[in-house]
Amino acid sequence: MKTFAPEPAAPPPLGEFELIDRFFSRPGHRLPTQVVLGIGDDCALLQPTPGMQWAVSSDMLVCGRHFFPDVSPHSLGHKALAVNLSDLAACGATPVGFTLALSLPQSDAAWLDGFSRGLLELADAHHCSLVGGDTTRGPLTISITVFGEIPPGQALLRSGAVVSDDVWVSGTLGDAALALDCLNGHRNISAPALALARERLERPTPRIGLGTALRGIASSAADISDGLAGDLGHIVRRSGVGAVLDAHAVFSLFTPSHLKDPGSGGACDTSPSPDDVARYTLYGGDDYELVFTASPLQRTTLGAIASQTGTPLTRIGQIVIGDGIELVNSQGTPWKAHGRSFDHFAG
Amino acid sequence: MKTFAPEPAAPPPLGEFELIDRFFSRPGHRLPTQVVLGIGDDCALLQPTPGMQWAVSSDMLVCGRHFFPDVSPHSLGHKALAVNLSDLAACGATPVGFTLALSLPQSDAAWLDGFSRGLLELADAHHCSLVGGDTTRGPLTISITVFGEIPPGQALLRSGAVVSDDVWVSGTLGDAALALDCLNGHRNISAPALALARERLERPTPRIGLGTALRGIASSAADISDGLAGDLGHIVRRSGVGAVLDAHAVFSLFTPSHLKDPGSGGACDTSPSPDDVARYTLYGGDDYELVFTASPLQRTTLGAIASQTGTPLTRIGQIVIGDGIELVNSQGTPWKAHGRSFDHFAG
Repeated sequence: MKTFAPEPAAPPPLGEFELIDRFFSRPGHRLPTQVVLGIGDDCALLQPTPGMQWAVSSDMLVCGRHFFPDVSPHSLGHKALAVNLSDLAACGATPVGFTLALSLPQSDAAWLDGFSRGLLELADAHHCSLVGGDTTRGPLTISITVFGEIPPGQALLRSGAVVSDDVWVSGTLGDAALALDCLNGHRNISAPALALARERLERPTPRIGLGTALRGIASSAADISDGLAGDLGHIVRRSGVGAVLDAHAVFSLFTPSHLKDPGSGGACDTSPSPDDVARYTLYGGDDYELVFTASPLQRTTLGAIASQTGTPLTRIGQIVIGDGIELVNSQGTPWKAHGRSFDHFAG
Repeated sequence: MKTFAPEPAAPPPLGEFELIDRFFSRPGHRLPTQVVLGIGDDCALLQPTPGMQWAVSSDMLVCGRHFFPDVSPHSLGHKALAVNLSDLAACGATPVGFTLALSLPQSDAAWLDGFSRGLLELADAHHCSLVGGDTTRGPLTISITVFGEIPPGQALLRSGAVVSDDVWVSGTLGDAALALDCLNGHRNISAPALALARERLERPTPRIGLGTALRGIASSAADISDGLAGDLGHIVRRSGVGAVLDAHAVFSLFTPSHLKDPGSGGACDTSPSPDDVARYTLYGGDDYELVFTASPLQRTTLGAIASQTGTPLTRIGQIVIGDGIELVNSQGTPWKAHGRSFDHFAG
């Protein structure tokens, strides 16, 4: 579309088409069989695998809100796709492709080089092809829509939890929130420890392998983008059930990366208080682990899945009749979680 | 994801989920058969019609760049989807669904009410369902990804033009550029005339009916979002051919809406100069008409399609051996177009 505003003074301009050709087109790149036509026309053309359903998700990352302006462009490219792939993981879908809409204040070749490498390296790792998109000048904003495939009836939904199911969480929680606290000046930890926490904040690992392994095993799932309380909250609300969580198991999910890597030499200035640990595990977002429910009959199978996919799985509680989420502490006393989720508008 | 910045003072907050429920969820709304699961989970689930291909396109609209900050939210909602549907039209695809990623400075209920109505009214008119998305706080930015279906092998591509094909354009060109000139203070026309031109700038009509009718008839197609020169330029470049256009036919495409509606009482302060008319028709974007090529054997069929779809079609030239676009004026003298397309970065 035409511009509505005078152009600001800018570095040597890089045209929209030149930008796409240089950083995002890869003529020799082998596309998945489902991609009939990739970048370069008005639309991409995809040929779905016969009988499969398509899972679709869109996320938008805004500079200063979802990432710091000085974040490494390589990490940002990784994260922008990772948060979308995480939605596919939460559904158990296999990635196929994605579109990228990118608004940039200026066409900075060094920035674009890092961003596109971070983006496409993760895309290649998951055989997920960039099939189209849009670039424009404006405030730094990244919007990705990702597509994946899944056999009909096998998608993991938020609405499938049933009473007496176990509640599980993959990996550990709180590294991202810890890094954020440090980067916002609320806590000091050693540089090596911060580097490890920051790696999880800025380069999260979408749990694609786990998600597909949970097809037919988990009764419900969500990815933890906004915090365990909020995302498990979606599951219980949509399933019409409640959850009781073992506070000790929940808080034990906070095992910062630097403590798992004794060689890093890192340490917090002070150990996080119990309140901090509760905040990190219950309300810390951005770790992109999965929370899911499954029948207790699946415990052995889930142990095998944990081994096969190299993903630690922790059982943190149970689905019950009722609504909301209750925490039970080590003395058996119910500890009422505040029930609130992070919310982009309510803040 | 968690916020990285302190919240600015804001009007009474409207939560992300409340916002979606209130303005974008329509529980009673009948979804197309392909939509298995719409808004509310980590992913939407779509069941493609067996054998069909999927056409996918993403566009991003940035405040101050693609629209004026004070544009009516109802018009903006319409336009945000229209520019995406126009990409489906250019491919000949039938709309199915779309995702919306929306960044907003604040959650303003009146604005959201208008925006969502404009968006969903156009969506309903084309049986194209909102299936998911993302909302966040940030600079006003709208990113939509649209999906449509088309039988394999029938998509209209930019690369299909062949020598001796006719070049056609739907409707008229230049209203949007005229409106933009007026709104930017470069030209004065009467209020009723401006209202008509502005309607085309702000509420373009995606040529979905024409696009699907052109399956198997047109050899190539593109929508005119950046100007005829640029968008036909894509076709000739990707088809490895050139085009010779009749300047008189091209310039006659500028028939401002107020001249087609004598009752409007509108008139330009001064008639646009020949240079203005050339600029409006060749480089004016935002009209969202289609430019396409077809064998001369299709002229009768195209006359019938024009009648059936109520879409004026004008033959403006021919595909030739060579490259680039040449304009031939009424004296038969070749008039070399500058060959440049509007480009979001080169400006």
